[in-house]
Amino acid sequence: MEKVRFGVVGIGSMGRMHLANLQRNPRAEVVAVCARTEGKVKAAQEEFHVPYGYTSVEAMLENPEIDALVVATGADAHKEACLAACKAKKHIFCEKPLAKTIEDCEEIEKAVAGNVGKRFTVGFMRRFDPSYAEAKRKIREGAIGKPILFKGVSLDPASVLPAHLEGVKKGIYVPWFIEMGSHDTDLARWFLEGDPVDCFASGDAYVCTELADYNDYDNGFSLTRFDNNTTAYIQVGRTATCSHVESEIVGTKGTLRVNSVPRKNYLSAFTGSGYVEECQESFLARWGEAFAAEIDDFVDCVVTGRTPETTAHDGTMSLKYCLKLHQAYLDGKKK
Amino acid sequence: MEKVRFGVVGIGSMGRMHLANLQRNPRAEVVAVCARTEGKVKAAQEEFHVPYGYTSVEAMLENPEIDALVVATGADAHKEACLAACKAKKHIFCEKPLAKTIEDCEEIEKAVAGNVGKRFTVGFMRRFDPSYAEAKRKIREGAIGKPILFKGVSLDPASVLPAHLEGVKKGIYVPWFIEMGSHDTDLARWFLEGDPVDCFASGDAYVCTELADYNDYDNGFSLTRFDNNTTAYIQVGRTATCSHVESEIVGTKGTLRVNSVPRKNYLSAFTGSGYVEECQESFLARWGEAFAAEIDDFVDCVVTGRTPETTAHDGTMSLKYCLKLHQAYLDGKKK
Amino acid sequence: MEKVRFGVVGIGSMGRMHLANLQRNPRAEVVAVCARTEGKVKAAQEEFHVPYGYTSVEAMLENPEIDALVVATGADAHKEACLAACKAKKHIFCEKPLAKTIEDCEEIEKAVAGNVGKRFTVGFMRRFDPSYAEAKRKIREGAIGKPILFKGVSLDPASVLPAHLEGVKKGIYVPWFIEMGSHDTDLARWFLEGDPVDCFASGDAYVCTELADYNDYDNGFSLTRFDNNTTAYIQVGRTATCSHVESEIVGTKGTLRVNSVPRKNYLSAFTGSGYVEECQESFLARWGEAFAAEIDDFVDCVVTGRTPETTAHDGTMSLKYCLKLHQAYLDGKKK
Amino acid sequence: MEKVRFGVVGIGSMGRMHLANLQRNPRAEVVAVCARTEGKVKAAQEEFHVPYGYTSVEAMLENPEIDALVVATGADAHKEACLAACKAKKHIFCEKPLAKTIEDCEEIEKAVAGNVGKRFTVGFMRRFDPSYAEAKRKIREGAIGKPILFKGVSLDPASVLPAHLEGVKKGIYVPWFIEMGSHDTDLARWFLEGDPVDCFASGDAYVCTELADYNDYDNGFSLTRFDNNTTAYIQVGRTATCSHVESEIVGTKGTLRVNSVPRKNYLSAFTGSGYVEECQESFLARWGEAFAAEIDDFVDCVVTGRTPETTAHDGTMSLKYCLKLHQAYLDGKKK
Repeated sequence: MEKVRFGVVGIGSMGRMHLANLQRNPRAEVVAVCARTEGKVKAAQEEFHVPYGYTSVEAMLENPEIDALVVATGADAHKEACLAACKAKKHIFCEKPLAKTIEDCEEIEKAVAGNVGKRFTVGFMRRFDPSYAEAKRKIREGAIGKPILFKGVSLDPASVLPAHLEGVKKGIYVPWFIEMGSHDTDLARWFLEGDPVDCFASGDAYVCTELADYNDYDNGFSLTRFDNNTTAYIQVGRTATCSHVESEIVGTKGTLRVNSVPRKNYLSAFTGSGYVEECQESFLARWGEAFAAEIDDFVDCVVTGRTPETTAHDGTMSLKYCLKLHQAYLDGKKK
Repeated sequence: MEKVRFGVVGIGSMGRMHLANLQRNPRAEVVAVCARTEGKVKAAQEEFHVPYGYTSVEAMLENPEIDALVVATGADAHKEACLAACKAKKHIFCEKPLAKTIEDCEEIEKAVAGNVGKRFTVGFMRRFDPSYAEAKRKIREGAIGKPILFKGVSLDPASVLPAHLEGVKKGIYVPWFIEMGSHDTDLARWFLEGDPVDCFASGDAYVCTELADYNDYDNGFSLTRFDNNTTAYIQVGRTATCSHVESEIVGTKGTLRVNSVPRKNYLSAFTGSGYVEECQESFLARWGEAFAAEIDDFVDCVVTGRTPETTAHDGTMSLKYCLKLHQAYLDGKKK
Repeated sequence: MEKVRFGVVGIGSMGRMHLANLQRNPRAEVVAVCARTEGKVKAAQEEFHVPYGYTSVEAMLENPEIDALVVATGADAHKEACLAACKAKKHIFCEKPLAKTIEDCEEIEKAVAGNVGKRFTVGFMRRFDPSYAEAKRKIREGAIGKPILFKGVSLDPASVLPAHLEGVKKGIYVPWFIEMGSHDTDLARWFLEGDPVDCFASGDAYVCTELADYNDYDNGFSLTRFDNNTTAYIQVGRTATCSHVESEIVGTKGTLRVNSVPRKNYLSAFTGSGYVEECQESFLARWGEAFAAEIDDFVDCVVTGRTPETTAHDGTMSLKYCLKLHQAYLDGKKK
Repeated sequence: MEKVRFGVVGIGSMGRMHLANLQRNPRAEVVAVCARTEGKVKAAQEEFHVPYGYTSVEAMLENPEIDALVVATGADAHKEACLAACKAKKHIFCEKPLAKTIEDCEEIEKAVAGNVGKRFTVGFMRRFDPSYAEAKRKIREGAIGKPILFKGVSLDPASVLPAHLEGVKKGIYVPWFIEMGSHDTDLARWFLEGDPVDCFASGDAYVCTELADYNDYDNGFSLTRFDNNTTAYIQVGRTATCSHVESEIVGTKGTLRVNSVPRKNYLSAFTGSGYVEECQESFLARWGEAFAAEIDDFVDCVVTGRTPETTAHDGTMSLKYCLKLHQAYLDGKKK
């Protein structure tokens, strides 16, 4: 069996997770890693037994043994890596968000369009979660009639706040409607099969009040009218008691819910507090299966020539929607 | 024991329910009923063993044996009954919505203010539901920190649509953000302890498309910014698979949910479809306990002289909020 | 409307509850109460506005204004009251267990058989709980095929232990398979439509070890083979974290569960502990609706002449089964 | 990194699953497969890219490149493979049940004791399921006090019945208390930390009545008194509406449940039937994670020299308990 040979750009927590998942896929192998710091590169090579290591994408792309790239750097660096990889005629799996500006997104879209015969996708892994995938399947089969409302709630536990504030101060982190919201904006478009027209948003930096100094917030609530007469309610927050991503798709004939109670596992308890189900503590605990499925699907696309469902355009449109939500939030604050 | 002697105005389904609940309260008795049609009056007198029957509120109010009135007519007739009852110095329990226009509401408020020493309340029975009451208690005790978001979803089963359409055609029924929304607008104000500033709404007559001809809809979705920097999401619909009223109050330290799965009773089943919990079929199945508790509370207020928590002003403000939501819906449609 | 005129014998917590429920039934009135202590009788008369009071059943039965009796004394006194009431040709609602010995049960059965034209029933109120009633209805309709297994778990919170121990020391309380078990033995017979043949039981006084000195226990587990090839698992305990009565009926084509999570109300919460649903704190919180429905049904039987479904024989058979379970427990301990 | 080199004996569904899981473990590789039919061996070698193939265990064991064996044949052949592997000084992972007779189990135990320095374990994978593992951890931390009752319910969907009957007719399948029961008997011993003394069992071939001709049944219910005064209720069946393995551990201070509702994934729906959660369709859907975790743990034991928690003796004791349950069932039938 021919294996797809991957180079992984960016070896933070996301890059390492994709790397580990690729190593478990029998049709893939990771032959190279790339990061800015030489020490990190060496360490990753050793830990994961990866033959080649680089500190620049260009150098890596000169290696003819690489078929495909996983781009898992910060969003700022996505464009550079994607453009170079397109030029080098590689398959590309790019983490979300596609980029930090619409202009960058559109440049990537163009480059991807020119990279004929090669696969490209953006890492909206929720689409590969078994529950979301089944929800989509049921909707296609007509189980709930026509979808008219998508509700997406994406919450991080309050424990993440101090690190977030640090990141915001350093200019590394983008506001929450853009960072966390990117998943829900993609899901909204996926389930409603339309695009956003009007947005209205509210919220505030209720707990970590310092975020307000950076036009950021710890809770954002929004409602969006879509061009096909449907609606999306998107709520993001980072003051929750657990990691909690819950979605609902309301149709004219029924309603589907995903993860309404973010149960940690199959265990429940009767204690002095009542009936208790512990909840998901981190996004990896929730999405491990989806991350594996999405990279497996991408390997399959490369091997079989099938086109990935999620396109660069989806990446652009998700960001556009995120920016609209953020702007609506800022507009509301001015009133 | 002295019993509070009630006259019930309006003996449709709501009036009859209040009547039956009053008869089960050992500190109350129903001495009179009033409705426009003499036949209905006679029938209700016989069924419920009520000594006096009237076809006009004025006539009824001349009976000195009546201490208090339950006003359960259509919303159009609330003002007339309330003003007359205030003039006659009676205690008044008025069904929601307080009236159909802000002007009428304000007239009632004024009359109530002048009816010194007498109790007045509006029938927002959800406040008396054990679960909502406990939610409010927990919030007062600080269980979830400061409430920042109220989410209220109030859905009727699709089976109600034909009757609703008839009512709309006859001009009896008001649009759904006003009719069903009145409960959620009251809950939002009660839990968030603020008042609405900006509303945004969408939705449509998706299933019963004919409703659109009357500026009405079968699903409405809305987001509202409050004057104290909190937010309410209110969703109303009448195309659901069951009667489903669900609420969530998100605080800075925790979240409360009420009736997330509208279970019919304690029974569940494993069938070929999976794990199944049958759902509430009608609003009476859900709110029976709350209706009894609210009228019991009113009787207690009359007996003890305590002031009911829900005031005429709450009735006015709830309607104002409903009208804002409906207007926001219409404004959205124009775009 | 003619009202059924009741005398209530025994005015402890059960007697008072039946009294209050009867007062809420428009077709019933309570005209007399009876208890051993004159002070208690007077107090109850005043509190509930009951015209007649007695300290002996015989004296009460001489009052011709009494149509029916509620017997809610301790189980020891059931026989005397029932026999006297049968002799006096009264309708009788007798609390469970029917009596403390099979002999007493059989005497009651005989007396009831001779009280021709009068209604008699035993207070197995679970049969009137909406969820159990619906379970029975579904089974009759064939929803789960043929029932082959009944599982009944009846648990009291550990907070009841000290009072129980006191009662056991005074010889007032019977062991748990007899006291609490009486409900589950009745349900098992009702759902399985058979009678117990072989029992096996285990358990111990794990927490309140002193109970062992009285051949009593705080947890009992049992399995019973029925004469129609079905099986019942009955578990009783009083060391639980809440009041928790859960049942399951397994059929050849499906399974029904009642109260698998004994939710206190419709409220749930996300807290630092996870997803939490508070649980039922006492048996009254769970069974209030059933108690009201059972007495309403009995009133209806008296008014319409319909025969109550639960017979004196059911009372006898339930006790027989309880005693078998208790004996199986003792036999197991000897090994 | 040195990889543990595995030979897999038996390449039916279980063998193939272990093989695939080993291939995803970076510290393991599968170098050989073994089965009776040469065609099957060749096919598996090709599908999984395994270098060596054998039709006899002895031949395979002569290959010095093999460090460890996975024994995944039918239970009949476990002894032969285990004894030979012990003689050849290999690490052994043996599927459950350890063997079909106590004598065979004890022979294996002896051989394992002599295979000094090598790891041995039995595949009771439930212990590695995250929920069971957490339950055990919580109990060790005292979360529910002292465990006094284990309830294990293991049900297969009715759809498996025809294949089971075929297997029973051919003498391949053992009765259900032995086949399915082996997991629950192990869990009961694991959680209660004791051994069974007395068993009582009932049940029947209710749906697939032909099973009765083979002393087999489609539903078995049992209660067991343990030597440390604890109790186990074990229920097995194959007439359920889904694959449903549910456990409960009752302690003196709280209760833990695992998989009380066997939800298929995170999706739920509101449909005309009510609130619906689809259920697990097969045991692989439920236990995939546990199977992977158990083989990963075994690899870790081999690499680090740690002794696996589950011993050959656990295998023997589980079978003993299973046979007791089956015998108790047969004894009950004779009455």
